[in-house]
Amino acid sequence: MHGVMMYGPGDVRVEDRPDPIIQQPTDAIIRLSATCVCGSDLWPYRGQDKLDGPTPMGHEYVGVVEEIGSEVTTVKPGDFVIGSFFASDNTCEICQAGYQSRCVHAEPMGAIGTQSELARVPLADGTLVPTRGLPDADLIPSFLAASDVLGTGWFAAIAAEAGPGKTVAVVGDGAVGLLGVLAAKQLGAERIIAMSRHESRQNLALEYGATDIVIERGDEGVARVKELTNGYGAHSVIEAVGTQESMLQAIRSTRPGGHVGYVGVAHDVTLPGDELFFSGVHLHGGPAPVRQYLPTLIDLISRREIDPGKVFDLTLPLTDAAKAYEAMDRRQAIKALLQP
Amino acid sequence: MHGVMMYGPGDVRVEDRPDPIIQQPTDAIIRLSATCVCGSDLWPYRGQDKLDGPTPMGHEYVGVVEEIGSEVTTVKPGDFVIGSFFASDNTCEICQAGYQSRCVHAEPMGAIGTQSELARVPLADGTLVPTRGLPDADLIPSFLAASDVLGTGWFAAIAAEAGPGKTVAVVGDGAVGLLGVLAAKQLGAERIIAMSRHESRQNLALEYGATDIVIERGDEGVARVKELTNGYGAHSVIEAVGTQESMLQAIRSTRPGGHVGYVGVAHDVTLPGDELFFSGVHLHGGPAPVRQYLPTLIDLISRREIDPGKVFDLTLPLTDAAKAYEAMDRRQAIKALLQP
Repeated sequence: MHGVMMYGPGDVRVEDRPDPIIQQPTDAIIRLSATCVCGSDLWPYRGQDKLDGPTPMGHEYVGVVEEIGSEVTTVKPGDFVIGSFFASDNTCEICQAGYQSRCVHAEPMGAIGTQSELARVPLADGTLVPTRGLPDADLIPSFLAASDVLGTGWFAAIAAEAGPGKTVAVVGDGAVGLLGVLAAKQLGAERIIAMSRHESRQNLALEYGATDIVIERGDEGVARVKELTNGYGAHSVIEAVGTQESMLQAIRSTRPGGHVGYVGVAHDVTLPGDELFFSGVHLHGGPAPVRQYLPTLIDLISRREIDPGKVFDLTLPLTDAAKAYEAMDRRQAIKALLQP
Repeated sequence: MHGVMMYGPGDVRVEDRPDPIIQQPTDAIIRLSATCVCGSDLWPYRGQDKLDGPTPMGHEYVGVVEEIGSEVTTVKPGDFVIGSFFASDNTCEICQAGYQSRCVHAEPMGAIGTQSELARVPLADGTLVPTRGLPDADLIPSFLAASDVLGTGWFAAIAAEAGPGKTVAVVGDGAVGLLGVLAAKQLGAERIIAMSRHESRQNLALEYGATDIVIERGDEGVARVKELTNGYGAHSVIEAVGTQESMLQAIRSTRPGGHVGYVGVAHDVTLPGDELFFSGVHLHGGPAPVRQYLPTLIDLISRREIDPGKVFDLTLPLTDAAKAYEAMDRRQAIKALLQP
């Protein structure tokens, strides 16, 4: 089968890789209907994360079950399924508390690589959620978004306690930030401040429910959010970047007692304890437990109440994966969908 | 009047200071029934916080109102009152959300200095809560504890989401940590792990509701908490020290999705963003909004349902304040009460 490998910074290739096989009785093999490039894939692409030799890429996926292991009972060949970027048993105490991304048996799908035609999904019963019947083709991008960026934005909005009466600020205008706007709107937020200086992203943020756009960053961005909130700061702030600047911008934009939901994978971030202490904010985040939200998100997408697939503003065949990485790296695309 | 001043590390003196006067129409003057030395007073005593010249000390207080400003309506001369270490208006949006310690008009009582015979309390209507009638003398230490250490331990337990079915670990066996144990018990926690290697403190922790004692610290302490919780870590962890080691011990002792309530004033703490991200914990803390909890705590103390005053294991006249500091510095006393 074809699959994407990264050889080093800027060096993405589509190669012949061995077809996956059932390794454990709890595995399933799926044929991907669509996959995509994640903002986090750009860290190694830009050389900010080191690779240990040629590495299979991708952790977002939707597709049709081809084969199941002998112990799999909840999905069957022919089912259209969606899973998270962490396989999880969905039965351990951590999963049952809603933190499937930290399941005691969690397996990162990124180590398997889903930018490919086929993929092995471990712990299929715990990981995969089937749709009712095969979806309309135009819904596939939205279901793919649920696999990571929508689920992650949703978790961030919940971690930030977005809801009725709340003012929510969103730091980061990538796919996760934009879908954090969508999630905050769905959760009933009163006011949503999107922090973005890119017109196309601002427009999508407004379409998803943003009520205000702030173009300033850093301390100026913080000052602007405070101006918009009677000097208090936002009740809820979604952080969807993962840098020192974005984390501090998020914390400083939040009122005392407010909530920061942070989902940008932290890179070289060190939080000053005294500032955090006196900020009085709640801080919660990390790898989103997307599995928890999949039933809700699949339902919203199936009923066409949300359209998260709009974050894919570039669609290419899997064989053009290198172009997809390049477009995202140059911020010419918000997010690139790959068709196997 | 007599009042405590700190001149430098280890140099505490009781001096004649001017009697306080009403400065604002919202002020009250109280005559202290009792005051005390706080663990945070030891930072400058040990030279870890710098002083800017001779400094009045103390921020915990209970007493009887002597005089009120023209705009004060909720307390009157003769009332026995308790307040927090931050004066607050209790009307701004931040106060109304329950974060009075970050009131937009907050004034730190530590800048006024309550280790004294009299003290001016700003924003008296927002800050002071009267008891019903004068309390029995034996309850005064407990009411004094409510002014800071009990309110702080209570906030930490709430920030850590201690409650029914939860296992709570407590890092720190000072007065705040011990009262965090008491708070977790009151909030219905199923199991409470006190981390302490001092027998007298272990005993008080057990009396306050601890079910397990862990004497190990750092990574060994973390391993022990995990052993006691089927490898998952505690649901809720109270951090009541404020050092790098105690913060990491708290975060690492918490299961993914669990809650850390941290109230030790952070000193030279820098949290590694990547570890925090992948920990998946909730982090909340800071200066406790004690004012929020005073009505509840006063009620529990008045009905003799809790006895937080036991943390005072040394009582001295105010004039012996230097001995009180010395005893706490040497860990010969958990907490010293001063009688003006």
